[in-house]
Amino acid sequence: MLKKVRILIVGFGVIGRGVARSISEKREFINGKYGIDFELVGIGEREGSIVCEKGIDPMEACMLKSLNEHPHWKEGAKAIDIIKGVDADIVIEATPTNIDTGEPGMSHMMAAFETKKHVVTSNKGPLTVAYTRLKKAAEENDIKFMFEASVGGAMPVLNMVRGTLQANEILGIEGILNGTCNYILTRMMTEGLPYEHVLSEAQELGIAESDPTYDVEGIDTACKLVILANSIFDMDISYKDVSVTGITNITSEALKLAYDDGYVIKLVGEIQNNNKPAVAPHLVPKDHPLAVGGTLNIISIRTDLAGEITVTGKGAGAVETSSSILSDLISIANEIP
Amino acid sequence: MLKKVRILIVGFGVIGRGVARSISEKREFINGKYGIDFELVGIGEREGSIVCEKGIDPMEACMLKSLNEHPHWKEGAKAIDIIKGVDADIVIEATPTNIDTGEPGMSHMMAAFETKKHVVTSNKGPLTVAYTRLKKAAEENDIKFMFEASVGGAMPVLNMVRGTLQANEILGIEGILNGTCNYILTRMMTEGLPYEHVLSEAQELGIAESDPTYDVEGIDTACKLVILANSIFDMDISYKDVSVTGITNITSEALKLAYDDGYVIKLVGEIQNNNKPAVAPHLVPKDHPLAVGGTLNIISIRTDLAGEITVTGKGAGAVETSSSILSDLISIANEIP
Repeated sequence: MLKKVRILIVGFGVIGRGVARSISEKREFINGKYGIDFELVGIGEREGSIVCEKGIDPMEACMLKSLNEHPHWKEGAKAIDIIKGVDADIVIEATPTNIDTGEPGMSHMMAAFETKKHVVTSNKGPLTVAYTRLKKAAEENDIKFMFEASVGGAMPVLNMVRGTLQANEILGIEGILNGTCNYILTRMMTEGLPYEHVLSEAQELGIAESDPTYDVEGIDTACKLVILANSIFDMDISYKDVSVTGITNITSEALKLAYDDGYVIKLVGEIQNNNKPAVAPHLVPKDHPLAVGGTLNIISIRTDLAGEITVTGKGAGAVETSSSILSDLISIANEIP
Repeated sequence: MLKKVRILIVGFGVIGRGVARSISEKREFINGKYGIDFELVGIGEREGSIVCEKGIDPMEACMLKSLNEHPHWKEGAKAIDIIKGVDADIVIEATPTNIDTGEPGMSHMMAAFETKKHVVTSNKGPLTVAYTRLKKAAEENDIKFMFEASVGGAMPVLNMVRGTLQANEILGIEGILNGTCNYILTRMMTEGLPYEHVLSEAQELGIAESDPTYDVEGIDTACKLVILANSIFDMDISYKDVSVTGITNITSEALKLAYDDGYVIKLVGEIQNNNKPAVAPHLVPKDHPLAVGGTLNIISIRTDLAGEITVTGKGAGAVETSSSILSDLISIANEIP
């Protein structure tokens, strides 16, 4: 007997579509292995929503060029209204990250909590702006709130610490949490090319966005540190509490000099004991675990019992990120009576 | 209000003592963070046992040169009798690994299941000999059976796959799962020393045992593959189903030649789709994630959604292994009503 779990996807960009596709493609696997059937009952977007209590075919929605071609499309129906009004168990919040206001994600999550819906998200905005407030609201409403996908894409961090290192005190964390910067620095070093050149190349490949500020200035890494600091170290900080330096001033000459001395330069985010969390370019010995190349993410977790545990994985990508979102969905679904 | 969870430790060697020490040292942390209080009510050893329903001070037991100095020592009281007779929630089975019969661990675990006690273990023997039988017995008795510490020491593998990659199909696993072999191969390569010389050195340092067969012939790695194959790939195999080659025929000349070509030699265990699980020395490119040195363990997990996830950590050590055992204990304790 399958347990039906009704879900809403809010924000149907790269991540939202990736989740819908994975839910469709992995349906049989999840049915068979966990006895859970995720039924998509709504998709909320900026200009309108699709609601169908009998279930929406997630793959069909993915294939549409525009959601408004869907027979159940309601122009102007706001995401927040379907969160409040539709009978669902879990809301997947996948709207774009806004680190100034956290909106619209912030309002979406609060509405979900208030109407007793669990929340799974990849959206760093609300978590960076108001982590403690969100966590409290979730607890007060006895709601699960999970966000593995917000840090490191497919690379497990939050659930790994919670589910495999729970006897440990976490003493420090350092990692490479932005694949775009890692790609740029790796290419600059191996090809001896200047920053601007490699940035254009990354933009052409879709590895960097047309406005790369968020990545190259270290802002994205800093947001991830805020989430790690609050959720793993029980701090109560926001973006302003992180010291941030990006990679825009690094020259290929500096990378070459470092390399000749046995080092690579990496944009490292770190939280050490009670120090101020910091993002900055670091010299990393070539044979150090953190010296991973390309677009990979990596994180080293220093603990009292286990010593150092290091994890590497893909930090971005729609399918990869859906791994973390589905993991959170299954965890919550397992606990729904 | 603390939840009292009564535990028995069976086997009081390096691992059993390590667990007792960590339970003592981390008591306040675990009380505060999880609201759980582990109360040690019995320790079973080969020649006798300590039983005290009011609780044994774990650190006091660790400090004894021999357990028979303890006021509650009962000479001749068998471990299996205290498992059956003492009122406890969880049995920690930490007797030495025997991969021919699985004993005495096998009988201890079956006795625990029959008397409705959960089991946490680091003991590869029973898991290698009769995994499916044990799993079935645990399920029939509605008992939790966890064994993170049996593969990779402090490095999370089983709980990581179960708790963070649960939406993924696991397509393949490869790893370095024996720190002794990794140490020997690393030293032979970096120092150009012959196998016998480095082995003696490792024995002096306590990294290799006086009879190193189990490690250097690849047997230990093969046992870990059996556990991974059965628990992650739902296979039903035992030691005889693994193809095993150790490191005793590797010369420092071979390591040197490989290095000059850009490779290191590592003892790799792997399970690829439905192929026969295999342990053998592999040529690994120097910049490949698996090229970790020293006594570290590493495992790469290939999945359909997340791509490749790689974890590195300490594969041995009493305190390190206690991290995995305590993690399992806390998981089970959280689910006890």
